[in-house]
Amino acid sequence: MFIDDLMKGVDEKNNPTVVGLDTVLDYVPRFLKEESFRENGKNLKGAANAIWEFNKRIIDQIADLVALVKLQIACYEMYGLPGVEVFLKTTQYAKEKGLLVIGDGKRNDIGSSAGYYAKAYLGKTKIDGQFEESAFDVDALTVNPYLGEDGIKPFVEDCSKYGKGIFVLVKTSNQSSGQLQDISYAGGKMLYEEVGRLVKEWGKGLLGKFGYSQVGAVVGATYPEQARVLRNLLEGVLFLVPGYGAQGASAKDLVSFFDNNKKGAIINASRSILLAYQSELYKNQFPEEEFEKASRMEVIRMRDEIQQVLG
Amino acid sequence: MFIDDLMKGVDEKNNPTVVGLDTVLDYVPRFLKEESFRENGKNLKGAANAIWEFNKRIIDQIADLVALVKLQIACYEMYGLPGVEVFLKTTQYAKEKGLLVIGDGKRNDIGSSAGYYAKAYLGKTKIDGQFEESAFDVDALTVNPYLGEDGIKPFVEDCSKYGKGIFVLVKTSNQSSGQLQDISYAGGKMLYEEVGRLVKEWGKGLLGKFGYSQVGAVVGATYPEQARVLRNLLEGVLFLVPGYGAQGASAKDLVSFFDNNKKGAIINASRSILLAYQSELYKNQFPEEEFEKASRMEVIRMRDEIQQVLG
Repeated sequence: MFIDDLMKGVDEKNNPTVVGLDTVLDYVPRFLKEESFRENGKNLKGAANAIWEFNKRIIDQIADLVALVKLQIACYEMYGLPGVEVFLKTTQYAKEKGLLVIGDGKRNDIGSSAGYYAKAYLGKTKIDGQFEESAFDVDALTVNPYLGEDGIKPFVEDCSKYGKGIFVLVKTSNQSSGQLQDISYAGGKMLYEEVGRLVKEWGKGLLGKFGYSQVGAVVGATYPEQARVLRNLLEGVLFLVPGYGAQGASAKDLVSFFDNNKKGAIINASRSILLAYQSELYKNQFPEEEFEKASRMEVIRMRDEIQQVLG
Repeated sequence: MFIDDLMKGVDEKNNPTVVGLDTVLDYVPRFLKEESFRENGKNLKGAANAIWEFNKRIIDQIADLVALVKLQIACYEMYGLPGVEVFLKTTQYAKEKGLLVIGDGKRNDIGSSAGYYAKAYLGKTKIDGQFEESAFDVDALTVNPYLGEDGIKPFVEDCSKYGKGIFVLVKTSNQSSGQLQDISYAGGKMLYEEVGRLVKEWGKGLLGKFGYSQVGAVVGATYPEQARVLRNLLEGVLFLVPGYGAQGASAKDLVSFFDNNKKGAIINASRSILLAYQSELYKNQFPEEEFEKASRMEVIRMRDEIQQVLG
C-alpha cells in the first residue's frame, strides 16, 4: 500500500525529501549530451536518451537517501515518443532501486476519461477478456480537482483496488495560484479550503496503518500561511510540497506543512538537486563528469537542513 | 492560424461538428481486434494497433464532412507507449487528410512546466542550439485553469508564436462540475463566469480575421443555461462543446452555445459516431466489416440535425 510504504520509507531514511526528476536537456552536462547525440542523432531521441543517462546516474546516487522520486511528466512529453519512453524506463529503473515513484501529471477529466487516466497510471488496462497489462504503473499520480468529484472518484477507486495513491492539487506553489484558489465565499471560506475538505472526504475510506490516507494534497512550499490553515483542517492527509529551493521557499517555511508528529509532509526539490553540480556550493568540488555526486551532496544537505528545522 | 482555419472549415463544410476520436479497444469490431492480435499479440501493442486501424477507417469516412477531430489523450495513454504512438500517428493521419486536430489533454502545470506542455503539443522542443523538433504537434490543446494565469500564459504564448489554439475548461459537461465551478462569490458571481472572463482576457491579443480568438472555452452541452450566461459575456470566444449525444444533450440544447451569427461553437460527439455501427439506427444497414459507413451516416445525420435547429 503506497501510503504505508511511503511513511515507512521516509521514517527509515529519516528524510521526507522527494527528488524531482524534472529533467530537461539543458540540465544534462555537455559530455552526456554529446555521447547521446553521437549515438542517436541530434533529435528528440538523442535528447531523450541523454536525459535517461542523466536520470540513471542521479537515481544511483540518491536511492539510499530518499524514499521517493517524482517525475514531472511535462518534461518527458516535451521530447515526444522517445521522451515518454524515457519516462517509462526511468519509472521502472527507480522502482528496481527500491524507490516509490510519483507521476506528476496533474491529470483530470470527466468520469470515463478520468478512469482511463487512472488505468494508465495506477491500474491496469483491459486488453481482451481476462488479459490486462500495466501502461505506466507509477505508485501515485497528481490530479487536478477542477472537474469535481466525479472526475476524482475513478482515481480513488483505483487507489483502493491497486494500493496506489493520488495527490490532488489544493494550493499550488506558483505566483498566480490565488487567482482561483483563493477566491473567498460563504462567509470568507477560501476555494482551496473547500478543495482540501473534499480531499479529506475522498480519502476517508483509504487510511493506511499509520493513520494517513492514500489521497493526499499538493500544497506549495511558497504558501506557508495557507499550509497552516490546511494542516489544521486535514488530519491524516499527506501533503506533497513542491516549491522548496529554486522556487524560493526555505527550510524554515516548511515547518507549518508538518503535523504535530513531525510527519504528514513530503518535500519535493528538483532543480536544486539536479543542477547542484552547477551551483556555487559544489561546482569546484566535482568535475562535470561526476555531476551526480553533487546531487548526492545536496540531498544530504537538504535532509540535514529539514531535520534541523523540525528539531 | 488555427482559429481562422477552423472558422473557414466549419463554414465550408457547413458543419460545426468535431468528431471525437476517443477510441478505446471495446469500440473496435471483433474482426479488427483479432487481426491486430494475430499480428502484434494480445497486449498493449495489439490493442493500440487495433485502435489505429479503426481510427484510419473513421477518418477516411468523415474527412470530407467535418473540419475537426478531437483526440481524448487519456484513451491513448491507457495503452501505454504503443497507445501514445497511435495518438501521434492518428494526429498525423488526420492532418494529412486536411483535418484540424484538437488534443484533448486538459494539461496544466505551473509556469515552466506549463511551458513544456505547450512546447510538446503546440510549439517546438529545443534540442541543442538551433535544432528544434515537434513532439506531438496538434492544432489546439485543451487546458485546465485551476493554477491561474501563470499556468495558462505559456500556452497563450505558443498559440501566438505558432498560430495554434487552446480551449480552457470553463464549465465542464460532467454531473459534479458544479462542485467547484458553480461556487458563487462576490455578490453571486459564479466561479465559471470568472474563468470565462479570464479566458476572454487571455485571448484578447489573439483575434483572427473573423473576430474569434485563439483562446477558446470548453462549455459542456449538458449545461445550456450556463452556456447562455457565458455566451453573453464572451463575444469572440469560441466554445468547444462536449456532451452531445451519448452524454445526454440534444440538438435543441445546443442553440444557446451559438452566437447571433450562428457561429462561435463547435460540437463534439464521440461515442454516438464511433459506435454508430452498434446503434439501432444503423446496425441492420451495414455488416460489421463496414462499421465506418455507419459513422459516416451518423455524422451526416448530426450535421443536418444541428443545421435544422440553427435554422
